[in-house]
Amino acid sequence: MPEFRQNMISKEWVIIATERAKRPDQFLPKKEERGLPSHREDCPFCPGNESMTPPAVFSIEKGESWSLRVVPNKFAALQSHLTTERKREGRFLKADGFGIAEVIIETPIHNRTIATMDPEEVRNTAFAYRERYLALSKVKQIDLITIFRNYGERAGTSLEHPHSQIIATPIVPPHVRNPLYQSQLACDTYGNCIYCEMIDEEVRQEVRVIQESEYFIAICPFASRSPFETRIYPKIHRSSFGSVNDEELMDFAKILQDTLKRIYYGLQNPDYNYIIRSAPIEDCDVKYHHWYVVIVPKLTTPAGFEIGTGIYINTTLPEDCAHFLREVEI
Amino acid sequence: MPEFRQNMISKEWVIIATERAKRPDQFLPKKEERGLPSHREDCPFCPGNESMTPPAVFSIEKGESWSLRVVPNKFAALQSHLTTERKREGRFLKADGFGIAEVIIETPIHNRTIATMDPEEVRNTAFAYRERYLALSKVKQIDLITIFRNYGERAGTSLEHPHSQIIATPIVPPHVRNPLYQSQLACDTYGNCIYCEMIDEEVRQEVRVIQESEYFIAICPFASRSPFETRIYPKIHRSSFGSVNDEELMDFAKILQDTLKRIYYGLQNPDYNYIIRSAPIEDCDVKYHHWYVVIVPKLTTPAGFEIGTGIYINTTLPEDCAHFLREVEI
Repeated sequence: MPEFRQNMISKEWVIIATERAKRPDQFLPKKEERGLPSHREDCPFCPGNESMTPPAVFSIEKGESWSLRVVPNKFAALQSHLTTERKREGRFLKADGFGIAEVIIETPIHNRTIATMDPEEVRNTAFAYRERYLALSKVKQIDLITIFRNYGERAGTSLEHPHSQIIATPIVPPHVRNPLYQSQLACDTYGNCIYCEMIDEEVRQEVRVIQESEYFIAICPFASRSPFETRIYPKIHRSSFGSVNDEELMDFAKILQDTLKRIYYGLQNPDYNYIIRSAPIEDCDVKYHHWYVVIVPKLTTPAGFEIGTGIYINTTLPEDCAHFLREVEI
Repeated sequence: MPEFRQNMISKEWVIIATERAKRPDQFLPKKEERGLPSHREDCPFCPGNESMTPPAVFSIEKGESWSLRVVPNKFAALQSHLTTERKREGRFLKADGFGIAEVIIETPIHNRTIATMDPEEVRNTAFAYRERYLALSKVKQIDLITIFRNYGERAGTSLEHPHSQIIATPIVPPHVRNPLYQSQLACDTYGNCIYCEMIDEEVRQEVRVIQESEYFIAICPFASRSPFETRIYPKIHRSSFGSVNDEELMDFAKILQDTLKRIYYGLQNPDYNYIIRSAPIEDCDVKYHHWYVVIVPKLTTPAGFEIGTGIYINTTLPEDCAHFLREVEI
């Protein structure tokens, strides 16, 4: 029997359509192993080609070379020399495309990905995320910082070399603000962070938990919008990614890599997006928001109904997905 | 120079990234012509295979056979024999998957699509949309009716035979409700339908208008989220698709087909979704909402930034897209 499930924070609904459910293992094998070389002459992110990118704004050295670089995005959709002033075009509102876009080159090795990197490289990546998050949050026009990783063509990238992105904008859009209103209202009403309550409930129900570490928990959420949607939440209340301390950050790198290993080996290396959703800069230390990572393997295609209503039809049970990922040997 | 543009109804922002803009003609040729037969033995929607679908709930006869059928969706994500009662699962909220899902088989001919159908078939389709919209709106548990068409694999369908879908739900989700709040607030403040104002402004600025008919206007919106996003609005204020009269409906069929012809011939038959966005049933005759169709050709892939922020990066100017589509010979 199909059922509606509500995301208790955003209040959006999904349909879990058990009637046409696929078993988790029916999603694989989706694709063969990517047969990539460890170095490419023509890759702008490979060592030796540093002049193909703008100069690094942050890097981690290793011997004569580097193990991680953060560079301004050469093909940035936003630019940092513009104004943030709103302008009118007739009745429409617009603004210059002010913003800061950077690329985190996570490793010098072309054919790695988070799941197959050295743990040290993943820790470096998490460290670079926080460094750049904190640096960009000091830019006064910046209101929101989004860190994300697009992996594979179905996830919207054709660049093979392991990289993440960070985009800092002077705008907090309704898509981000609306769930904040919801969690603020919940907090005003019940006095607690609704994310903390949700995490407690997931721990209590247990069936959707993939992995727990000292400071983090990885789950397939109750109202997952698509198969194997996975979220990693800090167990200690923190509204901003920027406020994670060193010990937590290293633990985060570990659970992020473990979770992506489960997806990589369990689902045979699917394309995915992940996004770190952190509070807007001005709300960086509030009771009602809780930062997290959402990982979306690209196994299905949202169609007209999803676009029209925001109600996603998910053909798998999150409980089954969590069970499946828990069992993957990593 | 890139710019932010705001959707004046939803208040969501897009980035028009002119720096890496593609010219409209760089999107083609995307794909070869689909070499489909006019009839397939194994197609559940082809004549002769009527027993492969549930019995029709509506049909238009033609001679000994039919020219259009509406059938319950055999693989429906929602079912009509369930309750709408909300239930608790711990702290989470859920409900049985009550709803009604139907398929509109638009023509008996397997290898047509709206762009290549007889105009009469398109009129029949529009007529069937309204018939079923009105019939389903009388079901007391139904709060929202979404009519949509998924065309091609990138749009989330693998069924070739020309068809649309209709899904009636007992839930109005935040994704639908939030823009309604916005347009209601605008109407409370300024006294007018903000959609009507937006249409007036588009007519005044002219640059994004693709085609105008007696009752409708087709535009590439100011804050288009993706290349060639197109919207068709009734020029006379109507909040619900169900309230379109016969004369308007026939005019609607014409501008819908014309617009899809421009996309079909101009962009070489791309996959697309279209959605008819109508007010919830209870708000079917309100000053603040205005129904419309949104057509989204699947030419790009939303990635982590779009998923995370709802801010879409669009690499083409809507003005250029409208100009391009205006010039297509149909």
